[in-house]
Formats: sequence, C-alpha cells, structure tokens
Amino acid sequence: MGISYVNGRYLHKSIANISIEDRGFNFSDGIYEVMNFSKKKILNYQKHIKRLKRSLKEIKIPLPFYNLSTLEIIIKKLISFNSYNSGTIYLQITRGSSNRNHLFPNNTKLNIVINIYPQKDLSSLKKGVDIITAPDLRWKRCDIKSISLLANVLGKQKAFDLGVYELWLTYNQGIISEGTTSNCFIVKNNNTILTHPKNNKILGGVTRESVIEIARKNKINVFEKEFTVNQAYKCKEAFLTSTTVGILPVKKIDDYSINKAIIGSITLKLMKLYEDFLRK
Amino acid sequence: MGISYVNGRYLHKSIANISIEDRGFNFSDGIYEVMNFSKKKILNYQKHIKRLKRSLKEIKIPLPFYNLSTLEIIIKKLISFNSYNSGTIYLQITRGSSNRNHLFPNNTKLNIVINIYPQKDLSSLKKGVDIITAPDLRWKRCDIKSISLLANVLGKQKAFDLGVYELWLTYNQGIISEGTTSNCFIVKNNNTILTHPKNNKILGGVTRESVIEIARKNKINVFEKEFTVNQAYKCKEAFLTSTTVGILPVKKIDDYSINKAIIGSITLKLMKLYEDFLRK
Repeated sequence: MGISYVNGRYLHKSIANISIEDRGFNFSDGIYEVMNFSKKKILNYQKHIKRLKRSLKEIKIPLPFYNLSTLEIIIKKLISFNSYNSGTIYLQITRGSSNRNHLFPNNTKLNIVINIYPQKDLSSLKKGVDIITAPDLRWKRCDIKSISLLANVLGKQKAFDLGVYELWLTYNQGIISEGTTSNCFIVKNNNTILTHPKNNKILGGVTRESVIEIARKNKINVFEKEFTVNQAYKCKEAFLTSTTVGILPVKKIDDYSINKAIIGSITLKLMKLYEDFLRK
Repeated sequence: MGISYVNGRYLHKSIANISIEDRGFNFSDGIYEVMNFSKKKILNYQKHIKRLKRSLKEIKIPLPFYNLSTLEIIIKKLISFNSYNSGTIYLQITRGSSNRNHLFPNNTKLNIVINIYPQKDLSSLKKGVDIITAPDLRWKRCDIKSISLLANVLGKQKAFDLGVYELWLTYNQGIISEGTTSNCFIVKNNNTILTHPKNNKILGGVTRESVIEIARKNKINVFEKEFTVNQAYKCKEAFLTSTTVGILPVKKIDDYSINKAIIGSITLKLMKLYEDFLRK
C-alpha cells in the first residue's frame, strides 16, 4: 500500500489521515499537482512547481515552504520510502483545518499531503482511444488546478459508462476547451496543430506545454487557437495529452472516425519525440 | 471542542479524521447539508433530508442507509453527546476512499461525517447587512449541494475583505442568482417579493422554501422570477435567507442604500413569522 506524506510525517497510507474539518474536505479549498517520476527521478519538476505556485497565489494560499527546494527533498524522500521505480506523485495543499466557515481562517496551518502511485501500464491506451464531447459544466476558473473537480469526475464517469476513454468539454457554440483529465489537440489537413489557448477555460497542462515546445522545435506548426467540435470531426489527426498518460492518439470523436482509426504520422512523431524528451 | 460522528463512530473532534484518499478531499466528490437544532430538536428535518437524497441522486451516490430514520437517530445521538442545546448540524457524505482515480470506485464504502457547532449570536446581523454583487464563477449545477465550494469561499472572502457580509452572484446581463451562502429576495414597490426561480443556477435553500411558504400563507405575493442588479438597486426592501442565519435584512447593495438602511415592514413581518415558525 505504500508510504504517504502528511504535514511533516511519513506514514503508512492506511493511517494517513486528515481532519474532517480540513477545508479541502469541506470546501474543496485547495490545489494539487500530479507529477511523474522515472528511475526515482521527478520529471518536469520546475514546470509543475511553477504552476503549483500560481494556483496557490490565485486562491490566496500562502506559499507553504520558506524554500521550494524543501518540497523537492520531501518528495524525493517519499519516493525513496516507496518501492516503485517509476510512477505518479500526487501532491495536495489545502488551506488547513478549522471550524467550518467559508471565510479564510486566521493562523491556521496549511495541510500538505503527498501520495505515490506505481506506474500504470499504458500500452493499450497508446494504441488510441475513443472520446465523446459534452457541454462544459465546470466553473469559470479552470486555469487553477483546484480540487473542485466534481464536474470532471462526473464527466469522466459518463465517458466510462459509454465505453470511451475521455470526454472533451464544449462551450458556446461547440468550442472544445479540454478533456476532463487531459488537453485536446487536432491536426488540420495542412499538418498544422490546433489546441485551445491558455486562458480561464482550460488548465495549462505541463504535458500540453512540453508537447507544444517539442513540436515547434521540430518544425511542426502549433497554433493555440480555439477549434470547434465540427472541426474536430473533420480533422486529419487528433490526440490528447496529460501528465499521467503523455500523448494518446484519438481514434474516434463522438460518431466520427479520425484518420480511419489509424494513428496519424504527426501524432506518432510527437509520441516518439515526447518519449525521447522524458528519457533525457 | 465536542464530539463528531465518522462512519459509525462517535469521536472527539480532535481525532475525527478521514483518509487522505477520501474522494471529497481529492475531488470534492460529495454532498452536504447544514441543519439547525433548537432545544436539542432538529429543525425542518424532512426538507433537508429530501434535498440530501436529491443531491446524492444527482451525483450518483447511492443512499447510504437502508432507512433514513437511522440517520435521524445518529444525529439525535450526536446532539445528545454534545453540550449545546441549540446550534448547527453539519453532515457530509462522500463517495468514499480509494486510490485516486476520477472514475467512481467499485465496492467502496461511502464516508459519512457529522459535526455539531453551537448556536452563533446573530443579534448584530439581524439589524441588517451590506452586500456587494459580482459575476457568478461557479459551475452549472448549483442546484446540487455539493462540497465543490471554492468559488463560494473566494466570493465570501472577497465580501469580507471589502467589509460587507455577503456577495450576491450575477450572470448574463446582471441577473442575480443567489449569494455565496444565502438566497436573495427583493421587495418591489407594490409589496410583491421576487426571488430567483429554483433551477440549476441556485441551490433551492430550505429556508428560502420555508420563507416563500410562510409569506404566501400570510397573503404576501412571492414570485419566483429572475431579477437584475438594477432592479435590486431600486427595490423597496431586500433580504437574504439561509439556514444558519434565517432571514437577514439587506441595508445596502453595492453603493445603493435600500429603504434608507431601515428594515422594511415586509422584511420585519417575515422575520417575525419565520421565528414563530421555527418555535413551533
């Protein structure tokens, strides 16, 4: 079951608890990050920490460490306490525990918890996944990586119940924002890539950002520009990105088969480049 | 500090904990109710339980008790274990604890926690409060009493930082939905009352519903009909309702003084009628 970190202590997960008056538990008043580690090494750490700091700032939680290198030491220690060589790090920070009241408490210590999960086998997902689209019911600050994730949970479950991997969220007249747990990309017939711009409608994914950088370095045009469901139905290739799964080819969007359900050349190239990038 | 209920156990609050893998804590995947008790008796219990059942159903959490009278027995027992004669009951149910994954877990027991808080002194609030308005950033299913409350927390804190009691949320071209912790009412010059209709834009407050019923029984016209910020600025009287505070007169909305900051006759009448109703 492994070892978790809770407010300065390394505990067996079965006894890793938090107060029932934690503000994350009562109000979803907290933020999180999901990072990967490989060969016990944290991947893309700086990008995750930059976003973590931003999320904290946006919901007015003070930075919990004098020095963020402390956090890196804690995570590395936790990785060393667990037996997996590669996997996922889940880090959550909430505004702490206090009598239930919407207002920020005074002089309350933040709650910080970290969990480690072993690497999942992604081989079947890497062959391509089907997705559906549905209206985005989330709040208007999706740029904050908050634990206010009920809409995401209900959306992801809906996809699962319909036998597909992911649900892409739409707003206005069918603009695709992002998936419930991933960012969305389509490749147009001219081989340029479109993905939703980074604003309050999407979470700026770390993998999204890395993939854009890698594509541009390799002379593939990427435009951070809104696209619609209809554009997606007619696209040449489509894929999604997240820290947990990297890049996954999309074979079908609603009832529309993409590239005859064959992984396209741009997607394949980016999957390879991204693997190389992680291995560096 | 008092006694809390956690999954079948009555515990001192200082040791009332929940797993760091609780889905409420990680995903805000849960719902809650706030009820009052007076002279150790739960007020308006049936209305709260009806809404609790609806919230659970909407997010597909199965009913946690064979018989909901079990829950009433638990709450009454918890009240008897605490020293306060009157106060607030906080009840939260989440989809349980399991390895972090957006998808609903299989065969996981729900987590049920209940807290009791002593009655607050409301005398100064009952003299009237000031409020501000701001755009509603919440998700599109405000009719579910979910713990996805980060937007409410940030809104309420904003009001506090600006020295007022509450923030009324607006959408489209200035339609007022509800407050961050309360429902909104205005009284027009013809002495009819307006409050936002019960749909996905607001939580159908139990006190809101009781107040509407009481008003109608006493020949005061209430229309569940949208109204705008501009209508609110020019209204004859305004008030807000919540289980925790009952009815509070509103003296000022943004920069507009309401009824010269004097509690209006309709508001006063309803406050008295509502007190009588609770005392019954």
